[in-house]
Amino acid sequence: MTLPPEFALIARHFRPLAGAGALDLTDDAALLDAPVGRQLVLAADAMVAGVHFLPDDPPETIGRKLLRVNLSDLAAMGAAPLGYLMTCGFTQGTPDAWIAAFAEGLAADQAEFGLAVLGGDTVATPGPASFSLTILGTVEPGRALRRAGARPGDDLWVSGTVGDGALGLLALTGRLPSDAHLTERYRLPRPRLALGQALADLARACMDVSDGLAQDLGHLARAGGCAAELWAAEVPLSASARLALAAQPSLLACVLSGGDDYELLFAARPEERHRVISASQATQTPVTRIGRFLDGDGVRVLDGQGTPITLPQSGWSHFA
Amino acid sequence: MTLPPEFALIARHFRPLAGAGALDLTDDAALLDAPVGRQLVLAADAMVAGVHFLPDDPPETIGRKLLRVNLSDLAAMGAAPLGYLMTCGFTQGTPDAWIAAFAEGLAADQAEFGLAVLGGDTVATPGPASFSLTILGTVEPGRALRRAGARPGDDLWVSGTVGDGALGLLALTGRLPSDAHLTERYRLPRPRLALGQALADLARACMDVSDGLAQDLGHLARAGGCAAELWAAEVPLSASARLALAAQPSLLACVLSGGDDYELLFAARPEERHRVISASQATQTPVTRIGRFLDGDGVRVLDGQGTPITLPQSGWSHFA
Repeated sequence: MTLPPEFALIARHFRPLAGAGALDLTDDAALLDAPVGRQLVLAADAMVAGVHFLPDDPPETIGRKLLRVNLSDLAAMGAAPLGYLMTCGFTQGTPDAWIAAFAEGLAADQAEFGLAVLGGDTVATPGPASFSLTILGTVEPGRALRRAGARPGDDLWVSGTVGDGALGLLALTGRLPSDAHLTERYRLPRPRLALGQALADLARACMDVSDGLAQDLGHLARAGGCAAELWAAEVPLSASARLALAAQPSLLACVLSGGDDYELLFAARPEERHRVISASQATQTPVTRIGRFLDGDGVRVLDGQGTPITLPQSGWSHFA
Repeated sequence: MTLPPEFALIARHFRPLAGAGALDLTDDAALLDAPVGRQLVLAADAMVAGVHFLPDDPPETIGRKLLRVNLSDLAAMGAAPLGYLMTCGFTQGTPDAWIAAFAEGLAADQAEFGLAVLGGDTVATPGPASFSLTILGTVEPGRALRRAGARPGDDLWVSGTVGDGALGLLALTGRLPSDAHLTERYRLPRPRLALGQALADLARACMDVSDGLAQDLGHLARAGGCAAELWAAEVPLSASARLALAAQPSLLACVLSGGDDYELLFAARPEERHRVISASQATQTPVTRIGRFLDGDGVRVLDGQGTPITLPQSGWSHFA
């Protein structure tokens, strides 16, 4: 009895990615010792072709994007990665070379971020390709970063630059001139794992920006029972984003609400500014102070003159 | 700033399912203490409408089927369930009542099997509805059941009845007369968790039957480096399956190769027959001896007279 192609596909492309505990992907489940003296951190995200990535994105980047989006969730909790499980819905007739490139991208990121696949499932779908990934990480007990905790008077910080992913999507779909930096940021987010871990005992609240800075700031403020003020002119922009905004100032809404940033958004007390900068330097991850938390509720976006700005949309939603 | 419908949907339907550690599904990840003195067992499966379930299956059963398929993987390892993460790709425009029924089904199974949701993601898809679930369980260190371990001379056992799921699909798609038992077995597999746990230190190898008895037996034999003989006349059938087979004997191939059984298939030494029966009785899970392991390789299917049968297909594959 020969093995059907599904098993050959898994053996060829995914078994080389299997980590300790994955049992070579030949058992019904992975088996690993519970990490001693750590808490488990678990998150899951799904991506659908044409919704979360472009069907003609290079296959090397597609699995990596999903892995990095999940790693960003670990970063937001201050956790370290341990492993992941992934289910792949490939369109019937997907070339073997496409799947090979998909797996090669994952292999590169496994090496970069220090984790390996523990299990998963591979199915054929009549619809668009879709993928789901569950990530497993660990954190020292009691030291996980949480969304709730921002208090009036706290500073609001963000890592890296904002808006590149959303602008990258516009560039890739012909609505902006093509730009290698923006494209790369759309396809390959940069999970801020080292910064997240360095912010334990320092950030009072933290999350990653996935659905748009303004909307996600709303979550952070609401979880802390306070209001937030976002200083639009202070929001860190890449050179590419600054160029795009200079040519078309109305793109500000896209920058602040477009999503796909995967930067860390966090609250810290003003007396911790030096420690925040030290954590940034130690982890070689830029951070910028872009607002503050206040009594009340809601988010106010202010321009460089302190005048409130109204954003035409409040962030990405699947069911708007 | 009001919350978009995606968050309302999660709050309304999924937050009530959230377990300890899920942080009310409002953080970036779940956070739970690593179980002390246990090993972790992790598995993931995906389901696509029209492939793994029928688009007009009752929504109450769809999430439950995916949960049970994953629980069956835990059962095959002898593990106890702890929690799960689920990503849902709902077709745009799915009625809220459909999602409510989907979540109600999950709630019923959470109560029945003693676990709760830890996290997940909800997206809209332009394709068929698709779902992915990662299950987390635990097992006493060193006591997990594994696929490798069957040895020549071992008995081959299976739990419950075989073929109901595959025949249920035929009945639901009009290729067999409708039958409530077969329909229910297709939609709601019965993960054999108690039996799996009772087989620790007793079964030498174990897996769950998902892709067809004959094909999965091939995996078990190959993992043990031996051959297997399957006695078709001994394979346990439900009354409904017996009726269908009496009317149409060619359905035997569907019974033995159709898949969707989610029964436990395991090897045990002949001197353990009494203990296997005791485990069966203690867990109120029928078991039947349906073959044996031999020197060599491959699977031979024999009829009641000991004559080899050739099956026209060797099991379910997504990429045949």
